[in-house]
Amino acid sequence: MPGPRIDRTHDQRLRCWVPGAMGHQDFPVQNLPMCSFIAAGRSRAGVLIGDFVLGLECLGATLGDDDADLRPVFAARNLDRFVALPSHRRARVRALISDYLTSDPGPTAKQALFASDEVKFTVPATVTDFSDFFAGIHHALTAGRFFRPEEPLLPNYKHVPIAYHGRSSSVVASGHPVRRPSGQVAAHGATAPEWRASRRLDFELELAFWISGGNPLGEPIPIAEAGDKLVGVGLLNDWSARDIQSWETKPLGPFLGKSFLTTVSPAIVTAEALAPFRAPQPARDAGDPAPLPYLFDPADQDAGAFDIQLEVALASQAMRERGEEPAVLTRSSGLDLYWTVAQMIAHHSSNGCNLRAGDVFGSGTVSGAAPDGHGSLLEHTGGGRSPIELPNGESRLFLEDGDEVILRGWCKRDGFARIGLGEARGIIFA
Amino acid sequence: MPGPRIDRTHDQRLRCWVPGAMGHQDFPVQNLPMCSFIAAGRSRAGVLIGDFVLGLECLGATLGDDDADLRPVFAARNLDRFVALPSHRRARVRALISDYLTSDPGPTAKQALFASDEVKFTVPATVTDFSDFFAGIHHALTAGRFFRPEEPLLPNYKHVPIAYHGRSSSVVASGHPVRRPSGQVAAHGATAPEWRASRRLDFELELAFWISGGNPLGEPIPIAEAGDKLVGVGLLNDWSARDIQSWETKPLGPFLGKSFLTTVSPAIVTAEALAPFRAPQPARDAGDPAPLPYLFDPADQDAGAFDIQLEVALASQAMRERGEEPAVLTRSSGLDLYWTVAQMIAHHSSNGCNLRAGDVFGSGTVSGAAPDGHGSLLEHTGGGRSPIELPNGESRLFLEDGDEVILRGWCKRDGFARIGLGEARGIIFA
Repeated sequence: MPGPRIDRTHDQRLRCWVPGAMGHQDFPVQNLPMCSFIAAGRSRAGVLIGDFVLGLECLGATLGDDDADLRPVFAARNLDRFVALPSHRRARVRALISDYLTSDPGPTAKQALFASDEVKFTVPATVTDFSDFFAGIHHALTAGRFFRPEEPLLPNYKHVPIAYHGRSSSVVASGHPVRRPSGQVAAHGATAPEWRASRRLDFELELAFWISGGNPLGEPIPIAEAGDKLVGVGLLNDWSARDIQSWETKPLGPFLGKSFLTTVSPAIVTAEALAPFRAPQPARDAGDPAPLPYLFDPADQDAGAFDIQLEVALASQAMRERGEEPAVLTRSSGLDLYWTVAQMIAHHSSNGCNLRAGDVFGSGTVSGAAPDGHGSLLEHTGGGRSPIELPNGESRLFLEDGDEVILRGWCKRDGFARIGLGEARGIIFA
Repeated sequence: MPGPRIDRTHDQRLRCWVPGAMGHQDFPVQNLPMCSFIAAGRSRAGVLIGDFVLGLECLGATLGDDDADLRPVFAARNLDRFVALPSHRRARVRALISDYLTSDPGPTAKQALFASDEVKFTVPATVTDFSDFFAGIHHALTAGRFFRPEEPLLPNYKHVPIAYHGRSSSVVASGHPVRRPSGQVAAHGATAPEWRASRRLDFELELAFWISGGNPLGEPIPIAEAGDKLVGVGLLNDWSARDIQSWETKPLGPFLGKSFLTTVSPAIVTAEALAPFRAPQPARDAGDPAPLPYLFDPADQDAGAFDIQLEVALASQAMRERGEEPAVLTRSSGLDLYWTVAQMIAHHSSNGCNLRAGDVFGSGTVSGAAPDGHGSLLEHTGGGRSPIELPNGESRLFLEDGDEVILRGWCKRDGFARIGLGEARGIIFA
């Protein structure tokens, strides 16, 4: 089986001493998402537990000699050391944190707890490279129809886990304001552009896969070993300026239409935490090609997908001012991806490209098959043609200044505690 | 005028105490390219001088209080701190090194000199992001003809400094072996791929622009300030597997066809060193659009180009075994670029994307207009159709195992010392 097993850390009956953590809908003690945060003027590595974040330094003193290698991980200012650990040591970190939070707390334990709404979360680890896949097949189909009605899905799609290199410098943590970018824009069919603020600013609902990497340059990662390279999962909003993107994108792909900002959720929900929520990769349509051998692993096909529920909510400035709830625009699932993360890892390294700790893969826009599954406004509005209506009567073709976009994700399964991925938020400003 | 001025460090009459440095064709004391290297088991920042490299630590003791900020730069293990300096402090570094190498050397000075052929050069600074432009218009035209005979140059080309995000992890220093990548490859017109070693492995002759960056996320760099963000220039071989590239590239651009390896020369020839070799940006063809205002700066048009001579040489294994000289395949020039580096910097940041110290921009393949100007085998062979002949009777459509590709660059101008960019080398192996 690829990836970690279900163990005692997933037990629903675990009791945790942190107030409010029991039954917390996102961050019960069965989740233990890793994060980086600033509190009392210092950057720290931490773990989310209920409505709190526990600074990991407090665990350093509890480590025995067998775990001496983890001292710098717990003392670190962010998760750079954690994401570089091999998978069995990441599992050990989880076990230690689980034990700490379910045993009698020592006298200093509560000093390491910070209220989550009083700290500043940062990008969990240094993003060494950002690669954005295109594995949401419903998105690829719907978006492809706008550009190529006669051939929405290109011939390579079901053979190649298509991806492009993204920009790592502009990956920010949830809550960072999203400045509307300006750029070259050409009206449909025009051959000369003008320079102006984007009028087609969009979100893209994606999963973020945090990778440990470690293969030497020139050495592919076999798919049977690829699952071990997944540190964990977060949410990723691949903000897109469609008008800038469409003018610049040929022949080398998206650039400034994407690189102005990418928002990730602060928490890495670990591969260990997700063990109960693994699922078979959904069967391909009849007539689809089988994955080439370097992308095919029976164990990965059996349990390489993640049953993660996803949604996008939007709150306009008017809605927020009136205290109205964000409107849920989109519901989709990790099972809407055509490729598993192990396939992405095997593919990305198949030419010998070295993956490193801190590599982030975007899944590609995760759209569901149903109309409420559209993972971007481009899809919701038929390519910017038919506005969607918000509950308060406002309508949108694309995002307006003051709009807040909120990505959310969670996992549920009978017999297991529900766990959440948290949120990735951003408000547009001019 | 954009960028540094000509000053006493460029004086042809300067005398340097390093043996053989006077009149050295690449690295006289008027050049002073910055590098990182390993000698005696330690990584160090250095400067190339003649056939030697000077470890910069030795300069630390010479610094006065006004230059205390440079101590960590000289003591550093690579150029990460140097590339982060503002331009006036980079100029100060040059002045200090020039003085050191042209004054009476102290008793310890020669201990800091290492023979260049006895050290290991590394990538000069940590590559924080790698963006690859497409500014070689002759390359864009010739390569475009193979894919779109009816429209070789897309409508956006003369408006947008086209670029794509590249892979930073696999950027290596000159001399690193180049493993032939495998990948998905589809015969022309085929709809199903096979998996095999690339048969269309190619080089691309590019300039590497090392960037200091520093703009906050969301704040574009105005073109009038962009020139100051150029740390210096090197050579870059954007190795390309054409068969992998052509199958994967739609719709999101090049990925595994490029990311297996990118070779850079070990030296950063600084913007200061290049001051005498600035040139007006060549006039655009009649009928070409003027650059949009955010890309237009009269001073940049007057002196924003670099008169750098470039060449590609190839030595097959048979040639090397017989002691034959590498065959020069290509001659081109920095003046063959359609966009200046200041335009690239202004464009890249125009959407608010934050550039950082250690950003590397590839220029795009620098091809000349003449047939001997083709900066890749793709162009030399008419898209892989007509082999080129080597002096020893061997022929090539694409690179074969054992082939060594050598990029070289240099600048000459009457009244100034000739300076070189050095070399970027790599040998293919299976």
